Amino acid sequence: MIYLTRKEHFNAAHKLWRPDWSAEKNEEVFGKCANANWHGHNFDLYVTVKGTPDPDTGFVIDLKFLSKLIKEKVVEELDHKNLNMDVPFMLGKMASTENLAMEIWKILAPEINVFPNCKLYKIKLYETERNFVEYLGE
Amino acid sequence: MIYLTRKEHFNAAHKLWRPDWSAEKNEEVFGKCANANWHGHNFDLYVTVKGTPDPDTGFVIDLKFLSKLIKEKVVEELDHKNLNMDVPFMLGKMASTENLAMEIWKILAPEINVFPNCKLYKIKLYETERNFVEYLGE
Amino acid sequence: MIYLTRKEHFNAAHKLWRPDWSAEKNEEVFGKCANANWHGHNFDLYVTVKGTPDPDTGFVIDLKFLSKLIKEKVVEELDHKNLNMDVPFMLGKMASTENLAMEIWKILAPEINVFPNCKLYKIKLYETERNFVEYLGE
Amino acid sequence: MIYLTRKEHFNAAHKLWRPDWSAEKNEEVFGKCANANWHGHNFDLYVTVKGTPDPDTGFVIDLKFLSKLIKEKVVEELDHKNLNMDVPFMLGKMASTENLAMEIWKILAPEINVFPNCKLYKIKLYETERNFVEYLGE
Amino acid sequence: MIYLTRKEHFNAAHKLWRPDWSAEKNEEVFGKCANANWHGHNFDLYVTVKGTPDPDTGFVIDLKFLSKLIKEKVVEELDHKNLNMDVPFMLGKMASTENLAMEIWKILAPEINVFPNCKLYKIKLYETERNFVEYLGE
Amino acid sequence: MIYLTRKEHFNAAHKLWRPDWSAEKNEEVFGKCANANWHGHNFDLYVTVKGTPDPDTGFVIDLKFLSKLIKEKVVEELDHKNLNMDVPFMLGKMASTENLAMEIWKILAPEINVFPNCKLYKIKLYETERNFVEYLGE
Repeated sequence: MIYLTRKEHFNAAHKLWRPDWSAEKNEEVFGKCANANWHGHNFDLYVTVKGTPDPDTGFVIDLKFLSKLIKEKVVEELDHKNLNMDVPFMLGKMASTENLAMEIWKILAPEINVFPNCKLYKIKLYETERNFVEYLGE
Repeated sequence: MIYLTRKEHFNAAHKLWRPDWSAEKNEEVFGKCANANWHGHNFDLYVTVKGTPDPDTGFVIDLKFLSKLIKEKVVEELDHKNLNMDVPFMLGKMASTENLAMEIWKILAPEINVFPNCKLYKIKLYETERNFVEYLGE
Repeated sequence: MIYLTRKEHFNAAHKLWRPDWSAEKNEEVFGKCANANWHGHNFDLYVTVKGTPDPDTGFVIDLKFLSKLIKEKVVEELDHKNLNMDVPFMLGKMASTENLAMEIWKILAPEINVFPNCKLYKIKLYETERNFVEYLGE
Repeated sequence: MIYLTRKEHFNAAHKLWRPDWSAEKNEEVFGKCANANWHGHNFDLYVTVKGTPDPDTGFVIDLKFLSKLIKEKVVEELDHKNLNMDVPFMLGKMASTENLAMEIWKILAPEINVFPNCKLYKIKLYETERNFVEYLGE
Repeated sequence: MIYLTRKEHFNAAHKLWRPDWSAEKNEEVFGKCANANWHGHNFDLYVTVKGTPDPDTGFVIDLKFLSKLIKEKVVEELDHKNLNMDVPFMLGKMASTENLAMEIWKILAPEINVFPNCKLYKIKLYETERNFVEYLGE
Repeated sequence: MIYLTRKEHFNAAHKLWRPDWSAEKNEEVFGKCANANWHGHNFDLYVTVKGTPDPDTGFVIDLKFLSKLIKEKVVEELDHKNLNMDVPFMLGKMASTENLAMEIWKILAPEINVFPNCKLYKIKLYETERNFVEYLGE
């Protein structure tokens, strides 16, 4: 059993803001992250797949395929976007890194888990160099 | 003559957009950076001061002072802000990394150049790990 | 279940030295780390909390709270200190990275585990870019 | 139980190529990695040992010993080498990062597992900053 | 005057070897870098352009253009290649990082210096995290 | 003219402290850096040599020689030492990063400047990831 990881990257704007709360409460709970006119981050995304190497290729999964998949299904949707306004699968959700990692899992798991020898294992998402989350699907 | 550098950090949203251009022209020139609803970055800021060490302290400049100065005069103005909307000294300017580095110079140079033994030497500003600008004041 | 990590930083001096051993034996076992007059490191500390996101905020734990907690309870005690002489909870213990990580766990676990939806999951402590330890509490 | 990690480094050439396949099939499957005249990487190797700290030293394993072991048994065999041609334990195998990590495990596990208080826990091998694999021995 | 830098990346095999020298002399002078069957590196390439921001765009040079230029003219020629055998502009030259940086300058300078407001300023090329060269064109 | 840089590393303890000042004044001026029992850092040292590549080797300077020189003349003197107490060339000087960089220059310049085709160009010394100094010899 091998764990193979690919790193991809995107930039996005967001704010932490509940429309059902007053501006005061949003600022009290979310601090600077509630800035009305948004702020943003360079997000680093690490996708880990777990599986057994194919006897012919020595690969758990083809990294060219994995990179293309992440770019097409995730990075295209998020890069240079506003997580609160521009991203269909985040609409109506808090734009926290926690929620974003779980949504990325939901997108990638069915694409990767069709292969007989490997499964999506982990989504690791850096919001800044000092803050990151990991999600293992449950 | 010693060059001393302090790194600070801020996160911000911006877009590259000229209001006197059509949406089509903005997108043609600025590509994804023209996304109407903004995007954002983790900016790394390196401020370099050039001078001679003080004989008493061995310091070109007190790093605690330099860090506090950058935080109060620059990071406070930019962190978790929208560079196009929230930052007085960027209003009416293209929110490019080039312009931002030059404005940071204008803020910090008069604060640092009052010291007899040192001068502001360089502003280095990373927009992403792959893109950065440097400005030496002229 | 989400794993959320915050990175903090401190600088400290230490030496690896048993007072009940001769200088020769200390040097034989600990090599350069037994230098009588100390040496030091930039320590990078990663604290990982495991839990379920709060439905209101999308947070496992408030990162502002977590950062403040680590700074007040751990970094304040260790930063710019001598691990053998200045740190009450390390007195009488070998100042190894292993022991330091376990002591940091003991300090943070009761502060974090009071929250109903999250628990301290891991302490990861870098002594240098090439050496680090991880402790999961048992 | 503590997990202790040491990072070492080597540079090597390789290609992904099956001699029992045509050049066309190799290129179709392995893309640029099948370049006939090789390409290469700076590999970063992280070796993680799991164990209980020794009461006398506070060490899970002596890092000087662990570093020397990895250098003598692994880095010496791989550094500035061609993984397909120069490395006895890779002959006849696909020179994928997956296979290389598993072979490194086979070399290091018996050397580390002789100690009563610790066991080899993980081999983590970076091929590039964006691609890495992990192997836990089964 | 602003200095703007773009980072790109390639992987390649090479050896340091003079065909007019004996194997012994090659090994004596170049050490492990003379390994007959090659070795390789992950090269990080930083291209710095110096100029004045365009009044319309705030750009010294369009980063999308600069990135595309480096990829098409340099990275395409070098990525997943053997610097001694596969790269026309390196044939007959020592495959040292110094020579490679100077050749990359020769390729990029005429493409960038056609713009009225900017000039190529520096090529910085990392062979490993610990070794890099810089070339300013003279 | 090529600039070639080699990175080396050492760990050391120090404090910023003038014995001719009171403890109060030391603390007022140097803050936490005046901790009586020392603190310490992982120092990263970048040595840059400027010169013309040798026609036979393509080298400005042999990196194996440069690395060995830095290790023998500088790292051996500083690694796992106390900068205030254990290092002959720092005795009686403020143990600031500025002063340390200038002393390293004095040691390395005569060793490198004997070569006809190259000269020491720069000492860059990181005290932390956020603080570093550069010295160009005048």
